[in-house]
Amino acid sequence: MGRCSLQLLLLLLPLQASGASIPRSPALRAFGSLHLSSSPTSRPAVALNYSIRYFPQKIDHFGFYTDKTFKQRYLIADKYWKKDNGSILFYTGNEGDIVWFCNNTGFMWDVAEELKAMLVFAEHRYYGESLPFGDSSFKTVHLNFLTSEQALADFAELIRHLKQTIPGAENQPVIAVGGSYGGMLAAWLRMKYPHIVVGALAASAPIWQFDGLVPCGIFMEIVTTDFKESGPNCEKSIHRSWDAINQLATTGSGLQWLSKALHLCSPLTNSQDIQSLKDWISETWVNLAMVDYPYESNFLQPLPAWPMKVVCQHLRNPNVSDQNLVENIFQALNIYYNYSGQAKCLNISETATSSLGSLGWSYQSCTEMIMPFCTNGVDDMFEPHSWNLEELSRECFKQWGVRPRPSWITTLYGGRNISSHKNIIFSNGELDPWSGGGVTKDITDTLIAINIPQGAHHLDLRANNALDPQSVLLARSLEVKHMKEWIRDFHARPEKKQY
Amino acid sequence: MGRCSLQLLLLLLPLQASGASIPRSPALRAFGSLHLSSSPTSRPAVALNYSIRYFPQKIDHFGFYTDKTFKQRYLIADKYWKKDNGSILFYTGNEGDIVWFCNNTGFMWDVAEELKAMLVFAEHRYYGESLPFGDSSFKTVHLNFLTSEQALADFAELIRHLKQTIPGAENQPVIAVGGSYGGMLAAWLRMKYPHIVVGALAASAPIWQFDGLVPCGIFMEIVTTDFKESGPNCEKSIHRSWDAINQLATTGSGLQWLSKALHLCSPLTNSQDIQSLKDWISETWVNLAMVDYPYESNFLQPLPAWPMKVVCQHLRNPNVSDQNLVENIFQALNIYYNYSGQAKCLNISETATSSLGSLGWSYQSCTEMIMPFCTNGVDDMFEPHSWNLEELSRECFKQWGVRPRPSWITTLYGGRNISSHKNIIFSNGELDPWSGGGVTKDITDTLIAINIPQGAHHLDLRANNALDPQSVLLARSLEVKHMKEWIRDFHARPEKKQY
Repeated sequence: MGRCSLQLLLLLLPLQASGASIPRSPALRAFGSLHLSSSPTSRPAVALNYSIRYFPQKIDHFGFYTDKTFKQRYLIADKYWKKDNGSILFYTGNEGDIVWFCNNTGFMWDVAEELKAMLVFAEHRYYGESLPFGDSSFKTVHLNFLTSEQALADFAELIRHLKQTIPGAENQPVIAVGGSYGGMLAAWLRMKYPHIVVGALAASAPIWQFDGLVPCGIFMEIVTTDFKESGPNCEKSIHRSWDAINQLATTGSGLQWLSKALHLCSPLTNSQDIQSLKDWISETWVNLAMVDYPYESNFLQPLPAWPMKVVCQHLRNPNVSDQNLVENIFQALNIYYNYSGQAKCLNISETATSSLGSLGWSYQSCTEMIMPFCTNGVDDMFEPHSWNLEELSRECFKQWGVRPRPSWITTLYGGRNISSHKNIIFSNGELDPWSGGGVTKDITDTLIAINIPQGAHHLDLRANNALDPQSVLLARSLEVKHMKEWIRDFHARPEKKQY
Repeated sequence: MGRCSLQLLLLLLPLQASGASIPRSPALRAFGSLHLSSSPTSRPAVALNYSIRYFPQKIDHFGFYTDKTFKQRYLIADKYWKKDNGSILFYTGNEGDIVWFCNNTGFMWDVAEELKAMLVFAEHRYYGESLPFGDSSFKTVHLNFLTSEQALADFAELIRHLKQTIPGAENQPVIAVGGSYGGMLAAWLRMKYPHIVVGALAASAPIWQFDGLVPCGIFMEIVTTDFKESGPNCEKSIHRSWDAINQLATTGSGLQWLSKALHLCSPLTNSQDIQSLKDWISETWVNLAMVDYPYESNFLQPLPAWPMKVVCQHLRNPNVSDQNLVENIFQALNIYYNYSGQAKCLNISETATSSLGSLGWSYQSCTEMIMPFCTNGVDDMFEPHSWNLEELSRECFKQWGVRPRPSWITTLYGGRNISSHKNIIFSNGELDPWSGGGVTKDITDTLIAINIPQGAHHLDLRANNALDPQSVLLARSLEVKHMKEWIRDFHARPEKKQY
């Protein structure tokens, strides 16, 4: 369910696997967009000078039948690295091209000097250039090695390799850093390989968006709250818009009118198109909530500062005719899709791009990354949609030949029961719908929650910006404070040289 | 390289994979015998009443290409279990039939009442009845799912299942218990799944016998020390015996004489037979060091109390003729192989039995469980033999089509760098050669070493016996004390019901 103009966006905001083919599931479709990562960015202030390298990784760390390897790409920058009391910041790449994540994680570049840090950005297998089976990586049989465990093992092996081969790196503490799914990986890397990384900054990592740990409706409730607080009656207008669309869609002339009013590139012709339209609109609202940054940002399409406020200026009056309401919805959508004024029409009908990111995440969303979502239309502004695991399972089997294992992630990584771990910072923007599945309260004095009231999806990982709200500056300084402690503790301990 | 009379022994003392076919590696062959587990035992004082159950486990926890399951066998006993402030002791089964481990872990039965504990004994996949592919489980392609990680995931899934299905079990702390390889699994289960088990008793678990963490010669040095301390000149006699055998083997009549003097069932005919003979003798000395228990024990063949002392009574004089020395060696071997007086001859020539335990461990010794061993004939009483990874790799590829990954275990489980974990007791008998690769000093105040000066291989896990030395009684009482603390801490914490 991609759109022409969004092919690049889809690469990094892949839809949930089954979303494209399940009717009546606007929520489902929207929920695939885990990656804030894919959120707008301004370049960090410092120049991004890095080397591109490749490391041979076992295709299967957990079985010995195949001993084959593939080339994992990683980026490395050591301008500010110091061998004495320095550190290594290791970005645990998520579902996309690692160069893109590198360019969008200005925080690491901004703090490199202060932490005397080498920066490493490791690409996640099956994304970007790190394709275990090249062009045929997305055949079902080849996808068997696309799991979070394999990715963590890649990171562990790569870090061990770096320490063994870079003179001076051996006795340096490594801190994992990641956002969104990459943030989950950073936290999980620390949990599963505490001998490899001394701590983790897990930004906007919804590690509890699994297996009933949080209510399935929480995500869309936060989206709704964001809209509610971004302008008078904003969420009410959206809430009412579904009925307006449904009403207009009952006649052929209504469909025609809708197509024109929304400036769609392809006219709507049937009820399935209408569902696609509503899915696409829902997804837009979700994306807006994720990327509601305080400054103008340029992500695929440029967006204004605080884009939700701008969007909501068009949605102040829910009590207008269906047609007027739809016209207002168009104005709102147009902010997101046409801030530059270049788009001639809006395209909702492209099927999903074959970009790697989208395919890989679709598979992961059918196997391990089973995050229940739902809407009820009462606590949120969307049409009601319940969570349906059976339906997902059917679709996943159809698309990939696999069945979801909805409890595996909590069995593996502990669910809420993670208090025996140490040195993980969970940061969350309160505007970010993913904060609903995040850790937003301290668990222990070394498992720390940092909340950013004015923050959208991992704003803290982005480069410093003059328009940054105070809350994100504070968050970043707390994060640096903890990282410095971890680094100091590492250098202070006698056995640091032992492996 | 099994022997007829030892088929059952081999089931539980499988030789290292390549041992059978690598010439000149007595040490290698002997070193396969990881399992103290397989050590003599007397039945615990209490009656062993348990139910036998089966749980469907995913064949592959770490990939989704196959969703098939197999039946994992486990035993469960709840006679002394109390729902109020009770506990669950979970035996992490190692490389053999779980009933056998159950019968040989009297400690758990002895402490069940005091800990109000349910006892669970979980069989390790690919051993006993828990064969993922039935009779064809040992085909190379099917063996792909035989790893320690898969076994740990089995345990985690099984514990979660028990908690979900046994009324009253949900809010109970689970403690992992294991010996030898099972002890490694217990420790690793706590490290990787601390949300699943509150602590682990890892008895005689050589978690550092990997990747150069300890000198490769340490194992055989301990065997040598044991012989040295079990009788005057005992280790000197053995040290000299290799040359005596080699000398006698230079002539056809010498081979004939040797065969007769050692009461071998099949006569020695060539130099390869001589190597097999020396391997078999070396292995016998290793086994004796592992099972040097303070009381008469009945393991496959009966053994006297402190069998090494009895053996060494025949090896007091190294300065005799080659022939006399070999005759003395026979007397010593005869204690181990013929204490009952029933054996008509000693058999060294059977090839490895096809018993499951032996096959499975052979594969594991070719993949993850790469434990470097060596001898130099100076610090030990054996013929010199260096550690040769290349040779092992060739043999493993020939036998199983796989290559060893000698550093994987330390990457995965942390090597010496495990101080961030909590609540693991590492117990070691100082007589046990496996203690050389064990944790014998406290790492933190919750990663505790308990040493048992008069203990052989996980003596502490065996049932109480009137002849137990004071040191093992003390060890057991310390173990119970710590387990009680873990149980108390669990019941005291507010969030115990959370998963």
